[in-house]
Amino acid sequence: MDEKRLARVRKNLARRGLTQVLIVDPLSIWWLCGYYTEPYERFLALLVGAEGTPTLFVNRLFPDASDCGARVVSFSDTDDPMALVAARTAHDLPLGVDKDLAARWLVPLMESGAASGFVLASDAVDDARSIKDARERELMRAASAVNDEAMSWLVDQVRPGVTERQIADGLLAEYRRLGAESHSFSPIVSFGDHAADPHHEPDDTPLELGDMVLFDVGCKRAWYCSDMTRTFFTAEPTEHQRAVYDAVLRANEAAEHLVRPGVTFAEIDRAARSVIEEAGWGPAFTHRLGHQIGLVDHEPGDVSSTHDEPVRPGQCFSIEPGIYLPGDMGVRIEDLVIVTEDGCEVLNRYPKGLTVL
Amino acid sequence: MDEKRLARVRKNLARRGLTQVLIVDPLSIWWLCGYYTEPYERFLALLVGAEGTPTLFVNRLFPDASDCGARVVSFSDTDDPMALVAARTAHDLPLGVDKDLAARWLVPLMESGAASGFVLASDAVDDARSIKDARERELMRAASAVNDEAMSWLVDQVRPGVTERQIADGLLAEYRRLGAESHSFSPIVSFGDHAADPHHEPDDTPLELGDMVLFDVGCKRAWYCSDMTRTFFTAEPTEHQRAVYDAVLRANEAAEHLVRPGVTFAEIDRAARSVIEEAGWGPAFTHRLGHQIGLVDHEPGDVSSTHDEPVRPGQCFSIEPGIYLPGDMGVRIEDLVIVTEDGCEVLNRYPKGLTVL
Repeated sequence: MDEKRLARVRKNLARRGLTQVLIVDPLSIWWLCGYYTEPYERFLALLVGAEGTPTLFVNRLFPDASDCGARVVSFSDTDDPMALVAARTAHDLPLGVDKDLAARWLVPLMESGAASGFVLASDAVDDARSIKDARERELMRAASAVNDEAMSWLVDQVRPGVTERQIADGLLAEYRRLGAESHSFSPIVSFGDHAADPHHEPDDTPLELGDMVLFDVGCKRAWYCSDMTRTFFTAEPTEHQRAVYDAVLRANEAAEHLVRPGVTFAEIDRAARSVIEEAGWGPAFTHRLGHQIGLVDHEPGDVSSTHDEPVRPGQCFSIEPGIYLPGDMGVRIEDLVIVTEDGCEVLNRYPKGLTVL
Repeated sequence: MDEKRLARVRKNLARRGLTQVLIVDPLSIWWLCGYYTEPYERFLALLVGAEGTPTLFVNRLFPDASDCGARVVSFSDTDDPMALVAARTAHDLPLGVDKDLAARWLVPLMESGAASGFVLASDAVDDARSIKDARERELMRAASAVNDEAMSWLVDQVRPGVTERQIADGLLAEYRRLGAESHSFSPIVSFGDHAADPHHEPDDTPLELGDMVLFDVGCKRAWYCSDMTRTFFTAEPTEHQRAVYDAVLRANEAAEHLVRPGVTFAEIDRAARSVIEEAGWGPAFTHRLGHQIGLVDHEPGDVSSTHDEPVRPGQCFSIEPGIYLPGDMGVRIEDLVIVTEDGCEVLNRYPKGLTVL
């Protein structure tokens, strides 16, 4: 059990007037007590009270949990795990529940009268996870260092005739060679005007000389995620292409330059968006500027116009402005940053100036 | 909208006294109206009433849904989709909810007073999905035919020094070559006593001559899943190994022989388990006999000692007895079957007699 992290969660709970919370996100459970398993349709939860040792509910089919520092309650497929939870909650007080708790568990838990009310309380954990401690920052840096190296490999694959899918399918082996375990999300490889769809899925389109090439990729290494986007040219850009690229790059840099404690997520989004609007492509920047990242690639609390909270030291998020012109072209340039005491650290070192391969 | 499938769901709802259900499983939505998207943390649901056209709730960021035959209600990230749902439910009647509906939606839906009560009702859809129609049976056959061919490819990879991970990592390309889109689950490749862990994850262990080799693999082709296990020898088996293999094979065959309408899932499980118990390895058969399968590899309604319902024509499930002897060996032999009017059709044709590679 990581007592410091547990204390941060409890502080957040107390601020909300809660004394008990049922956490089911397997990565939140791992983050607190070091135990991980993917339960699929089975039940796995950590019940955290205002004090005392948290209780971990595990199916006997899961890996052994006895070393995790929680009090362990185990059960079989034929048991009713909600009865076990209800036997350990304070029935006369509200229970905070994880936003991911499925109805298959929540409905019977309510019917059992396990608490006086049920309120969403994941934010108590999400907020604590949002602030990376020193060890987590080191791991975020290491995952992005792998991603920088992988970008060099991706660039080496670019040649006429290669397909998007061929490059995407080869990336996992390269990540593994570089010491990562897996993708942090399904890689995006877009040739030509495919890049105008921000979520294009790699297909069998072969590269033609002159196509622009967009790579949006990330790996998981030692539990933590990376995520970076670069857009390349394979022939001298037209003036139009150069202007679009330049606007996206300046938007990226303006946002990164602004990041420091006290500035809001919305202000950072605005800094990038203003650059693109002033260049005349405002409506073509169709998504939020970025997302927080850590144990998963998209963590709660995005970098968008509606998120008015100030950023805090230790938060890590993407800065990824883009311009999408269907039938024509698309450019996105994305880095991860960690907020420091007086600015931010940009985790990606791979060059982002206009490059003709 | 598939009116026949919709009618089956409504019949199941009526049987439970329900007049409205909120479905969020993206594959159930696809199965009913042909619209598919993976919503991740965003909201996607189909509201089905006792009559009339169902309503599909889609985020504007999702692919266009206007062709799906449902009444479409679209919304943005800044809207409150639960208010949109609550505006279309009967507030004085209970609402059936999908077992997968997350607390992030269910709690606010309850707070909005959208219904007089909230009851789990996925079984109305799951039961309808369980019975494959003629077209679905054809697709289940085709996915298993690909899996049979892939097993031949897997066997061709077996040579001293090759690692579990190398074989597992190469399988996706072979599935694609054979016309499938993806794995239906993460492939299991187990050498030697690794097969004694039924859920072993492929690692960097190299094959040594004499190791037994277990492959448990499946693909998705045209939305439908396959799943098959075969266990091979790479040297003449000892008498002990031969006896274990023989017991598992006879268990597999006894269960497949028993399947016909009216026989219960529990009886089928018992048929296989008895063979293994009589051979003296009862406690080493540590899991249920099988699971239903279709749009996902594990569908509700397992083949286990606690499932007392009779099987019905059109149901498709796995028959996968195993014997797991930690530190020694493991054998599992798995086929998919579809229940017919008077027996069952075994979808896997790959030979399952004892084979030394």
